[in-house]
Amino acid sequence: MKKINTSPISGTQELLPEIQKSFDILKTKINDTYKNHGFFNIETPSIERTEILLAKAGGDTEKQIYKVVKTAEAESEADQALRFDHTVPLARYIVEHENDLTFPFKVSQIGLNFRGERAQKGRFREFYQCDIDVIGRDNLPVAYDADVVSTLLDTFSAFELNTPVLARISNRKILSGLLEALGLEEFSKDIYSIIDHAEKVTPEKTKMDFEELKLKKDDIKKLLNFIELNGSRSEVIKELNNLEIENEKFNAGVTELDQVLYLLESLDLKDNVVADMKIVRGLDYYTGTVFEFILPEYKNIGSVCGGGRYENLTGYFSEKSFPGVGGSIGLTRLFYVLNEKELLPDFKEEKIDYAVIPVSEHEFDEAFNVAKKLREKRYSSTIVLTDKKLGDKMSYAAKIAKNGIVIGEEEVNTKILNAKNFATGEINEVNIEVVSNPEDFWAD
Amino acid sequence: MKKINTSPISGTQELLPEIQKSFDILKTKINDTYKNHGFFNIETPSIERTEILLAKAGGDTEKQIYKVVKTAEAESEADQALRFDHTVPLARYIVEHENDLTFPFKVSQIGLNFRGERAQKGRFREFYQCDIDVIGRDNLPVAYDADVVSTLLDTFSAFELNTPVLARISNRKILSGLLEALGLEEFSKDIYSIIDHAEKVTPEKTKMDFEELKLKKDDIKKLLNFIELNGSRSEVIKELNNLEIENEKFNAGVTELDQVLYLLESLDLKDNVVADMKIVRGLDYYTGTVFEFILPEYKNIGSVCGGGRYENLTGYFSEKSFPGVGGSIGLTRLFYVLNEKELLPDFKEEKIDYAVIPVSEHEFDEAFNVAKKLREKRYSSTIVLTDKKLGDKMSYAAKIAKNGIVIGEEEVNTKILNAKNFATGEINEVNIEVVSNPEDFWAD
Repeated sequence: MKKINTSPISGTQELLPEIQKSFDILKTKINDTYKNHGFFNIETPSIERTEILLAKAGGDTEKQIYKVVKTAEAESEADQALRFDHTVPLARYIVEHENDLTFPFKVSQIGLNFRGERAQKGRFREFYQCDIDVIGRDNLPVAYDADVVSTLLDTFSAFELNTPVLARISNRKILSGLLEALGLEEFSKDIYSIIDHAEKVTPEKTKMDFEELKLKKDDIKKLLNFIELNGSRSEVIKELNNLEIENEKFNAGVTELDQVLYLLESLDLKDNVVADMKIVRGLDYYTGTVFEFILPEYKNIGSVCGGGRYENLTGYFSEKSFPGVGGSIGLTRLFYVLNEKELLPDFKEEKIDYAVIPVSEHEFDEAFNVAKKLREKRYSSTIVLTDKKLGDKMSYAAKIAKNGIVIGEEEVNTKILNAKNFATGEINEVNIEVVSNPEDFWAD
Repeated sequence: MKKINTSPISGTQELLPEIQKSFDILKTKINDTYKNHGFFNIETPSIERTEILLAKAGGDTEKQIYKVVKTAEAESEADQALRFDHTVPLARYIVEHENDLTFPFKVSQIGLNFRGERAQKGRFREFYQCDIDVIGRDNLPVAYDADVVSTLLDTFSAFELNTPVLARISNRKILSGLLEALGLEEFSKDIYSIIDHAEKVTPEKTKMDFEELKLKKDDIKKLLNFIELNGSRSEVIKELNNLEIENEKFNAGVTELDQVLYLLESLDLKDNVVADMKIVRGLDYYTGTVFEFILPEYKNIGSVCGGGRYENLTGYFSEKSFPGVGGSIGLTRLFYVLNEKELLPDFKEEKIDYAVIPVSEHEFDEAFNVAKKLREKRYSSTIVLTDKKLGDKMSYAAKIAKNGIVIGEEEVNTKILNAKNFATGEINEVNIEVVSNPEDFWAD
């Protein structure tokens, strides 16, 4: 037989059953929290016309896209490719179904995205992205930004991680207004990029980067001072006002940030939220609120969630205006790092509740019925149907289940069942009736 | 602006939020039932090496496969393609992770598969397939076949469809043994194919098909008689025995079928199970039990679930033996037909439980906190944060939620909240404390 490589392709996640269960639990918690916060789930196809995906092309996107090709191309069809995020398909969905949707539309998307990135540790080519967005028609109040951030914070709280999470929040209008006030708009792109990278380098390097742009010493000082601003609402808003910047955009940004922080703090999330002027978010479509979540005790993990406000989601597909605010959890990468750093709680659901173990074929029907009754009580249960010795069946059961219930002749006669807890060795009577079947199929 | 086609590509499912919710509910019910029956969920990557997918190639598979190609191919990599079913990736997974798995391995897979089929109504190119399999090491008792069928029947029962479901069961050894006994092995493939199509044509056509093979009149009569056998265990097993076929395989098949039916009937599934000799299943890898589910009141829908027993799952990847039994629900197609025939129950969960409606910005913080308390009680809730008139907010709320709670100055002062049920008009006091925030952000 030809030896075939049976490993999964690089850059994909493939987990053993117990670990998959942890992953599935996180995914369910995300789904439940999003739903609980009133987001409607949608699912767009994984495959889109390339024209749609690349409507706003350029940069890495085009290089990373996975095209799909039918081996036998019967019909001539447009170029198709796998989606690389949920944002572009959402924009298409909104334009396509606009008349059937209710705005503001609170929408969630949990699914796989695909990027042909160079494979490396912790980078995935096929990964779950779990997005929420609120999409308005023409306008969308800034309070929805707080709605999105609080939903994502609640999601992380549902994870019950062994470490706290912190939302770092800023508003792009503040930096943008500051640059206007300083007359530095022409350097915007470079300055954004320098600030975006400021945490990955030393403060000296950041200063040098600004100097390379040949900015005035005084402006550099102001910028370096600005990006160091972080803390609670009361601190940061005061400090921003103290800068005495006379710029409409700047002031609008401060007011928006203030409102978002106010609502989050009123929700008792004060310990999980800071204003932080280093947050700009690389992607250029954000126009107001921007945020990133970190695990402060594990800073080198980087951002575990991010998002922000955008002026118009559908600019490439429609002339109508759909402002929105959204955020995303990159679940596959997050799970990878949480697992690696052992930050996941010890999920107790990883084994089956009960294994029902008939001693011989004569008790198969009773075993099926006992398992059925356990399931009706919402206990997961499985039946060990192998023709092995009882000891072997027991050790198999102990590997996959929390409790074992043996059913032999005695149990059928006495109608008393006992469950053994495999972890503690405890044995308890089970309150389930064994009805002996009048016809025993295997009776000799 | 260039007009871009924003419809999803043909052969994919894209649903409006309310309908998506029905779909998601079915998917959750499948997942929960599989879990409840002790199946461990796994998820293999969507993208596999083409070599793996086509290990057992030929026929339509190769024509329907979607290859994936990176637009900028930096590294030279093996051919990759999207999986077209869960069976091939499962075989790879078993061989790859054999030493970390516990056998018999009860495994479920719920995910998208991809086939470049010619697009037509009710046929999908990207579709959910929800599989369960029990994989043994070297051997696997036939009672697991009943375990799989009963799990799938429980899944359909969890759907609460407005119509019954029926599992039609046979065993390939019976037909195969019959052909051996009649000396017709050389016609096996044709005979299987004729029986497989017998329900799509008239009985006369089936007879003519047999005649075309130039079989003896007597043999044709026996075959036509054989495929008409169907009914309860007691009837069909008796009739099979009455055929007095002296063939080991035939007898083994009858015994296996008898055991599977016995266990299912002992689970009170008698009304949902028949033995039916017309069931052969097209795919050639089945070797024992074969089954198909239908909705008897909607026969023209065809099979809504199917599966069976296979001698060796991993034959193409390993010399070890992994016999298995499995079944699959093609959820996307199933949902499509259930929706079309209006067979889905009226899921009550399709709207959000509560919309909290602050009259003005002054009550935003109270609204956030009321929504938070509702969520803590496991009610989904959303906050209407638009700056519209109260009447507009109410009609928006009525579209997305079951109940509305208005919070204005009065509610903040009296601390009494009322919820309006939008369907009935009923108004009930809500047992939630409104704590007025000492600092009102928007206070003039």
